[in-house]
Amino acid sequence: MPQPSDLLTRLAVSTVIFALRPDHSGRSVLWTPLVRRTREPQRGYWALPGGWLPPNEELEVAAARTLRATTGLAPKYLEQLYTFGQVDRSPGARVVSVVYWALVQSDEAARASAGPNVRWVPADTLPALAFDHNRIIEYALWRLRNKVEYAEIAHAFLGETFTLAELREVYEAVLQRSLDPANFRRQMIASGRLRETGERLAGAPHRPPRLYRYDTSAVTAESREPFMRERPAS
Amino acid sequence: MPQPSDLLTRLAVSTVIFALRPDHSGRSVLWTPLVRRTREPQRGYWALPGGWLPPNEELEVAAARTLRATTGLAPKYLEQLYTFGQVDRSPGARVVSVVYWALVQSDEAARASAGPNVRWVPADTLPALAFDHNRIIEYALWRLRNKVEYAEIAHAFLGETFTLAELREVYEAVLQRSLDPANFRRQMIASGRLRETGERLAGAPHRPPRLYRYDTSAVTAESREPFMRERPAS
Repeated sequence: MPQPSDLLTRLAVSTVIFALRPDHSGRSVLWTPLVRRTREPQRGYWALPGGWLPPNEELEVAAARTLRATTGLAPKYLEQLYTFGQVDRSPGARVVSVVYWALVQSDEAARASAGPNVRWVPADTLPALAFDHNRIIEYALWRLRNKVEYAEIAHAFLGETFTLAELREVYEAVLQRSLDPANFRRQMIASGRLRETGERLAGAPHRPPRLYRYDTSAVTAESREPFMRERPAS
Repeated sequence: MPQPSDLLTRLAVSTVIFALRPDHSGRSVLWTPLVRRTREPQRGYWALPGGWLPPNEELEVAAARTLRATTGLAPKYLEQLYTFGQVDRSPGARVVSVVYWALVQSDEAARASAGPNVRWVPADTLPALAFDHNRIIEYALWRLRNKVEYAEIAHAFLGETFTLAELREVYEAVLQRSLDPANFRRQMIASGRLRETGERLAGAPHRPPRLYRYDTSAVTAESREPFMRERPAS
């Protein structure tokens, strides 16, 4: 029993990808890939990778497929970000977009398709995008900056192991401000989220920095409720 | 240019409401309102309040309207929880449901419609519901139990002011375990999220307990990044 209302509302999926890459000054900032629209509406505008939801395809699968098809990117997993459905967000018929997101490492970002219809841009200085895609990326940035588990973000951007300098670079890029190295080191160690790997950065100068690993065992609901636990003796 | 795929996919909204109410033993637990389905598919099954999304109605407005129409509940605001779209979640056509949620105070819950087709049930001991609604409520409970800002949850359940005993009752209901009152009091005060109102519980016995207020000024992205700040001297 199809509802007349359904015939006027369409479902789409889109994906916001963030990677850490140097800006013109060499400082690491957040970048996101955009795709140029080759069809109306808003033909020629840059937009998030995405497409229509086929009736027999799972939401996340559709998001991954359209992302790969347009940008060549295939993140290990996509997380649902939010569903945007404002009546007037798209000219013509009502379109509700289920938006997924992922953080990718710079080497994966570098493997992304190049070409006239795919472009990476700094996520904090966007051009005017199609539909409400500026607002979607702003929301994704807000979510990223409010994420509780920063070590998790670093893990996603940097991979299994990383130095404290690399970790600080992630924090500085996400928080958009520079942090005191000594203070940062002390606070990171105190956070209990990092474990030394015992290894040091390969191919580094005469005093190679230690490599750390993000300790997932420390990440539990409890660990996010500090005042529900006894505070560690300090 | 309608896509054939759209004609087979329908959009719905549903709402998960939680309130704190006593169970048979008088202990506060989480309750959620359900609505009996009066139409196929799955006629007679209990389900979340909800309905189809009309083409010209905002998602949140549709969620609020269908919630009010079925249960009489009108929470101050609804928050988007997640969008459930598994291909096989509904018999027949593909249905994608954008799910909203809210925490309401027990007096508001008490104002909800009664009747043979509306029923409140303890959220942790659900019957077999229509579609994937058991899974949706389990997901909502998981999100609630992983929420960072517990004071925010207490605020939503208890209102502007509350005693430490009432606050502990919220934590015990959400965490499903009892907490040591003295320890809880110490940790709550230490959390810096509470402010004394200077008032005491009205109509209470000869030593009425103090009333506290949830300090929203303490809730910022920074406050959720403890290791990004100098730790308070302890």
